[in-house]
Amino acid sequence: MPDINRILDAVDCELDRSLERLFALLRIASISTDPLHAGECRRAAEWIAADLTDLGFEASVRETGGHPAVIGKHLDGSRHRVLFYGHYDVQPVDPLSLWETAPFEPRITTGRTGTQHIVARGASDDKGQIMTFIEACRAYKIATGTLPIGVTMLIEGEEEMGSKHLPAFVEAHRDELAADVALVCDTGMWDRATPAITLSLRGLVYEEVRVRCADRDLHSGLFGGAARNPIHVLSAILAALHDETGRITLPGFYDGVAELPADVRDEYARLNLTPEGFLGQVGLKVPAGERDRLLIEQISTRPTCDVNGIWGGYAGEGTKTVIPAEASAKVSFRLVGAQDPAKVRDAFHAFVRARIPEDCRVEFISHKGSPAVSVPFDHPKLECARAALADEWGKPAVRIGSGGSIPIIGDFKRVLGLDSLMIGFALEDDRVHSPNEKYDLTSFHKGIRSWVRILHALAQ
Amino acid sequence: MPDINRILDAVDCELDRSLERLFALLRIASISTDPLHAGECRRAAEWIAADLTDLGFEASVRETGGHPAVIGKHLDGSRHRVLFYGHYDVQPVDPLSLWETAPFEPRITTGRTGTQHIVARGASDDKGQIMTFIEACRAYKIATGTLPIGVTMLIEGEEEMGSKHLPAFVEAHRDELAADVALVCDTGMWDRATPAITLSLRGLVYEEVRVRCADRDLHSGLFGGAARNPIHVLSAILAALHDETGRITLPGFYDGVAELPADVRDEYARLNLTPEGFLGQVGLKVPAGERDRLLIEQISTRPTCDVNGIWGGYAGEGTKTVIPAEASAKVSFRLVGAQDPAKVRDAFHAFVRARIPEDCRVEFISHKGSPAVSVPFDHPKLECARAALADEWGKPAVRIGSGGSIPIIGDFKRVLGLDSLMIGFALEDDRVHSPNEKYDLTSFHKGIRSWVRILHALAQ
Repeated sequence: MPDINRILDAVDCELDRSLERLFALLRIASISTDPLHAGECRRAAEWIAADLTDLGFEASVRETGGHPAVIGKHLDGSRHRVLFYGHYDVQPVDPLSLWETAPFEPRITTGRTGTQHIVARGASDDKGQIMTFIEACRAYKIATGTLPIGVTMLIEGEEEMGSKHLPAFVEAHRDELAADVALVCDTGMWDRATPAITLSLRGLVYEEVRVRCADRDLHSGLFGGAARNPIHVLSAILAALHDETGRITLPGFYDGVAELPADVRDEYARLNLTPEGFLGQVGLKVPAGERDRLLIEQISTRPTCDVNGIWGGYAGEGTKTVIPAEASAKVSFRLVGAQDPAKVRDAFHAFVRARIPEDCRVEFISHKGSPAVSVPFDHPKLECARAALADEWGKPAVRIGSGGSIPIIGDFKRVLGLDSLMIGFALEDDRVHSPNEKYDLTSFHKGIRSWVRILHALAQ
Repeated sequence: MPDINRILDAVDCELDRSLERLFALLRIASISTDPLHAGECRRAAEWIAADLTDLGFEASVRETGGHPAVIGKHLDGSRHRVLFYGHYDVQPVDPLSLWETAPFEPRITTGRTGTQHIVARGASDDKGQIMTFIEACRAYKIATGTLPIGVTMLIEGEEEMGSKHLPAFVEAHRDELAADVALVCDTGMWDRATPAITLSLRGLVYEEVRVRCADRDLHSGLFGGAARNPIHVLSAILAALHDETGRITLPGFYDGVAELPADVRDEYARLNLTPEGFLGQVGLKVPAGERDRLLIEQISTRPTCDVNGIWGGYAGEGTKTVIPAEASAKVSFRLVGAQDPAKVRDAFHAFVRARIPEDCRVEFISHKGSPAVSVPFDHPKLECARAALADEWGKPAVRIGSGGSIPIIGDFKRVLGLDSLMIGFALEDDRVHSPNEKYDLTSFHKGIRSWVRILHALAQ
């Protein structure tokens, strides 16, 4: 085995050029959910395939039926092989007016506390994180001319829209993607100083609902008082989804939701996540979830329901005295444990239909659902990855659950039989999915170094 | 007095040219609520002033501080004088995709039942109705060279946005606008065959409410379950505005709402407005208002609350897993009897504030409010106007209340001491404020003839 320090030195020497490469990727406006940006998504895929080819990977852009994916392979007949997964697509940037600098013109800024930030849409989610791994491979190649284990990379372009086409793609490429374990870099640290390995992810059910009443927009003076208003119908339905204790009222919603083991709950209590610390950073004070749960449970191991968007009637300047013909909302559920996405979707549809007046109609658009996933605490690769992270950060990595969803993780297990170690360097204040998204320069630099150590450890 | 038939003949002979003039006015996209259309509003005012000048009126465009108004005077020292009021501004046209023909390219179409329709935004509300009166004056001039009584016309351009600047304008021009009675042409017939004089109008309170929670948009995976969602807060507030019987729950809301006199209620019951007949035309079946009220009460003599628009979070294509920072709605109340707009507004603000979590904020934008107005059943000019309408239509005109609001009517009473006889020829199926707005050719033609008869009668 080569001396790890030679490789870590290569990371440090290369950092400026590593940043230049990240900035080039961040300049590509690969917003997957907006059809107008399909060309930019393809450009991002082509950029990554070209960069991996430079690195000596056998890499190419692959069609998926939607935005393309990239597969890159660097095998050299090693007996160990990892599958690295990330995504090049990003969330929309609206409201654009709240960005202090253009979302696709990355720059380094200095935060209040003097920390340096890489600011751009995708800086943290997920382009910055992808590049920590690619740059770790580069440092290895620079220092040793090769990689210590076989690496297959799968970078997709539809994660922010539910990875629609990826399961079929993984199915079709199962042999190419075979590995011992998956490494996924789309999660975060516990805090600035404490690395984390995420062992569970919440699943997702995402539904769009449209309520239609009259067959046209109506004058609220002529029809007001007699004509059913779809905004009233929709508001009543959304308001009924939670009770006064914060519990979700869908019948059967909590089926398959397990209680935390007592020792894990104690560990969580000791992490002492406070409303001031967690909600205070975004201007809030009072946890809005189930009253009888720890804040950390509310955001990681308990299921949730959020309305992600609502629209209907007149939203322009001034006044319009209209009773609209229809009103719509996007509603999503985060799932945990053994909750069944299909059952939750059906329960939601039934809940809504039961509240639609007889002379009104409802339509649903169902987006992809995914179950929650988790990795066993005794996974053989888990401890060596934790040790590698401890070497870089000087503290043991905590084992947490993430509130977010990465739909494909479930498919890796189902189709490829792979457990996923989710290791990332994002921070809670990264403003992921929000204006002025950032990634700390430390996350990027020490993230690269962390991957070098993990690749080294996995090769033992 | 000249022979009324000579004047009515002039109406019939002139009809094609009358339509050409109406079409010219309909081609002007005078959407008052959209700042981008300010120039079109002024063009409409100039067009009307020029047309009235051709007619021998002393007419000019007057500044109001907002969109201009038109005053036209044709007095000839007559002892009687009427003030005619109408508005040249129109509602926005969205959703444009639902228009079968361009909203500002008027055309005559033939309806299912063979009736001919003038189709355009403003055809009914209110350009078509204004022109029935102007063309009646024209016929009088053609047939007799003059008008039988003094006529002052006031045509404004901000009715669809609450007539913001008109009260001060009326105050400032009270001497010019002096008259015996006001004639207002912004209301409708009882049905195709039955003329109506509207004696009461509902008032209006129109409020915009914005709920702000976190100081930025949040990722629903990272914060979901702990962060307050402003769409949930807003939905719960809107849902709470009505109880299960359709009553509005604002404390004190019904103060000043009188019961109908028994005989009027009986007359209303005899008019037999049915859900099939009234709601069926727009694809609805079940009256949504107060359960214990006649349908005709729900839409004319009872107060209402409608959400006219709602927006927040992601409304684009696809999915975005966001908890938005804010959500907004436009909420309006129709008032009757002695309900006080200021009290209703205050009650609404208090109702909302009481439901805002301690770590969230709310902001209001208050648009103009107006009280309900009514004309006494024994008004001296009422009976001769009814008789004139009966002569044209062969049926007595019913005396009804309108569910709509014409804010300025209250100011005519307060500032000028004028009662307003609201006489119009719109029909319930005119799709006012909706796509494919129309005005029946019969409404236009017999409307002109009706005004000739009314002017004739008022001159006695």
